[in-house]
Amino acid sequence: MNSNTEYDVLCVGNAIVDILARCDDDFLVANGIVKGAMNLIDAERAELLYERMGPAIEASGGSAGNTAAGIASFGGRTAFFGKVADDHLGKLYRHDIRAQGVAFDTDPLAGTPPTARSMIFVTPDGERSMNTYLGACVELGPVDVEENKASGAKVTYFEGYLWDPPRAKEAIRLSAEAAHAAGREVSMTLSDAFCVDRYREEFLELMRSGTVDIVFANESELKSLYQTSSFEAGLEAIRKDCRLAAVTRSEKGSVIVRGEETVEVEAMAIDKLVDTTGAGDLYAAGFLFGYTSGRSLADCGRLGSFAAGLVIQQIGPRPQCDLRQEAAQAGLL
Amino acid sequence: MNSNTEYDVLCVGNAIVDILARCDDDFLVANGIVKGAMNLIDAERAELLYERMGPAIEASGGSAGNTAAGIASFGGRTAFFGKVADDHLGKLYRHDIRAQGVAFDTDPLAGTPPTARSMIFVTPDGERSMNTYLGACVELGPVDVEENKASGAKVTYFEGYLWDPPRAKEAIRLSAEAAHAAGREVSMTLSDAFCVDRYREEFLELMRSGTVDIVFANESELKSLYQTSSFEAGLEAIRKDCRLAAVTRSEKGSVIVRGEETVEVEAMAIDKLVDTTGAGDLYAAGFLFGYTSGRSLADCGRLGSFAAGLVIQQIGPRPQCDLRQEAAQAGLL
Repeated sequence: MNSNTEYDVLCVGNAIVDILARCDDDFLVANGIVKGAMNLIDAERAELLYERMGPAIEASGGSAGNTAAGIASFGGRTAFFGKVADDHLGKLYRHDIRAQGVAFDTDPLAGTPPTARSMIFVTPDGERSMNTYLGACVELGPVDVEENKASGAKVTYFEGYLWDPPRAKEAIRLSAEAAHAAGREVSMTLSDAFCVDRYREEFLELMRSGTVDIVFANESELKSLYQTSSFEAGLEAIRKDCRLAAVTRSEKGSVIVRGEETVEVEAMAIDKLVDTTGAGDLYAAGFLFGYTSGRSLADCGRLGSFAAGLVIQQIGPRPQCDLRQEAAQAGLL
Repeated sequence: MNSNTEYDVLCVGNAIVDILARCDDDFLVANGIVKGAMNLIDAERAELLYERMGPAIEASGGSAGNTAAGIASFGGRTAFFGKVADDHLGKLYRHDIRAQGVAFDTDPLAGTPPTARSMIFVTPDGERSMNTYLGACVELGPVDVEENKASGAKVTYFEGYLWDPPRAKEAIRLSAEAAHAAGREVSMTLSDAFCVDRYREEFLELMRSGTVDIVFANESELKSLYQTSSFEAGLEAIRKDCRLAAVTRSEKGSVIVRGEETVEVEAMAIDKLVDTTGAGDLYAAGFLFGYTSGRSLADCGRLGSFAAGLVIQQIGPRPQCDLRQEAAQAGLL
């Protein structure tokens, strides 16, 4: 076991630029968009939806990329693996994540497909519905694993969404091996209830085989994983299936379980819910920043709630503020 | 005189995509950026500043484009002339302005230079400092004037910034002639105190010759125009030089003068100043929407203050809400 860590957290995920616009609920229905979900779309549908989309703003996104940016904003040392193309959006993505202080060196894809983008429609209730064209993300594979980063990070964190592209899961297994061989921990987010539905058995196997130590989920992902309508039943099941799990419940806060231990954390009080994009990603950011800096589970949860609470009061998936400074002012650091 | 109007306002301006990030005041000093101003930069400096810039968001901008989008959001009928390139940012710009309901048919430039972008640094006090690479905007010229739009709009509105690219002023003179020949009015914004300093004599000539009927300015632009430190002296001078002028004074509201008439309008009370980008553009949007729908000068000013007040409470130059709906809820429509 290597006792030197170069990074607190290595994040691995789909490198996606978000295109965010407001719409009403009728628009989602008329366009067959599943509300609150991540809808996968092809290039043709991406063009069609963009034509129908209102005026938008663009911001770097992607679940694990948002988490990496969040941890870096707290002052944590992070790295990211993800595949962009050598195009305008790819340059934008690389700029934003590096400018946040995240080490990002995955080779961009030359030629097509282009950098991934997700058209995110935000309804008046603040809920976001994503429509993701994976583009260059489909090319992420084992060759993109920088083993020194996986073995040199306290936690390697990845998104369940990586089971959608064809070879990213091989990159994850390779990263997890390198991490565990160096005595590190591996963490994942279940990403989305429909994603869980697509890969339920594989996700359970990752947990039960010990490939994954720490799991992040929200209530509906947990219920989907265990095909139960009972939150409590889901919680007891995940308690047995992984070493540590943090389950978020929107305004009801989060519950963290580790062995016999159970910690409940309140959600942060907010002024106005603007856009839920990035909420789960930033919860994971706050939690993992706390976790890798040796804080209690309750403090990890509070940092998660804080970061999530900030990001849902703005448009876009990454907080437009300095999380370290804000958390310090709030007495959390 | 043609009594049918196809548009309430035709806006003409530099078609620019904004790249917005936060920074502290030291960054501006260290990088030689004039605070609060529009700094013109070349491609090389654009690359350098982007490298030094923090994580950003992208949003369609450009002064007159923001005004067009704002008027459309109020429900006004608008058209826009502006030059983008046939590249990613150009498509983004066209999408956003059309999706807002603005008629935008200027032919994109094939090849280089690329679509214009402005790196906008927002300091903790909410002030924005712009660094604009004009790119394809330098190609806007008389050939881009769609005369039916200029003659079919109640008001043709343009930005003083158009005196920076080489041939846009010819497009403006042509548009103004078409507008006046059809009995319409022509309006301009002085844009920026340094811009006024570059083109003072030309701007005064536009007003004194009657090429421009309605002028928008802020306090520092007004003072720069008449090279005076007295707001009152500036106001009396502009009263004589154009038929109608609206002068904004940030939190002190605005003053509208028309002949002997003087109307003072309060600024909208806001919760928190986030980013002043677009404030003047949205004041003009509210004012011109009110003006072209036959409202009193006081009501025009109130609509301007309202739109400006909303846009400075968010990041980015165009309100991420429906201005018509918000104004109706506030009892202004």
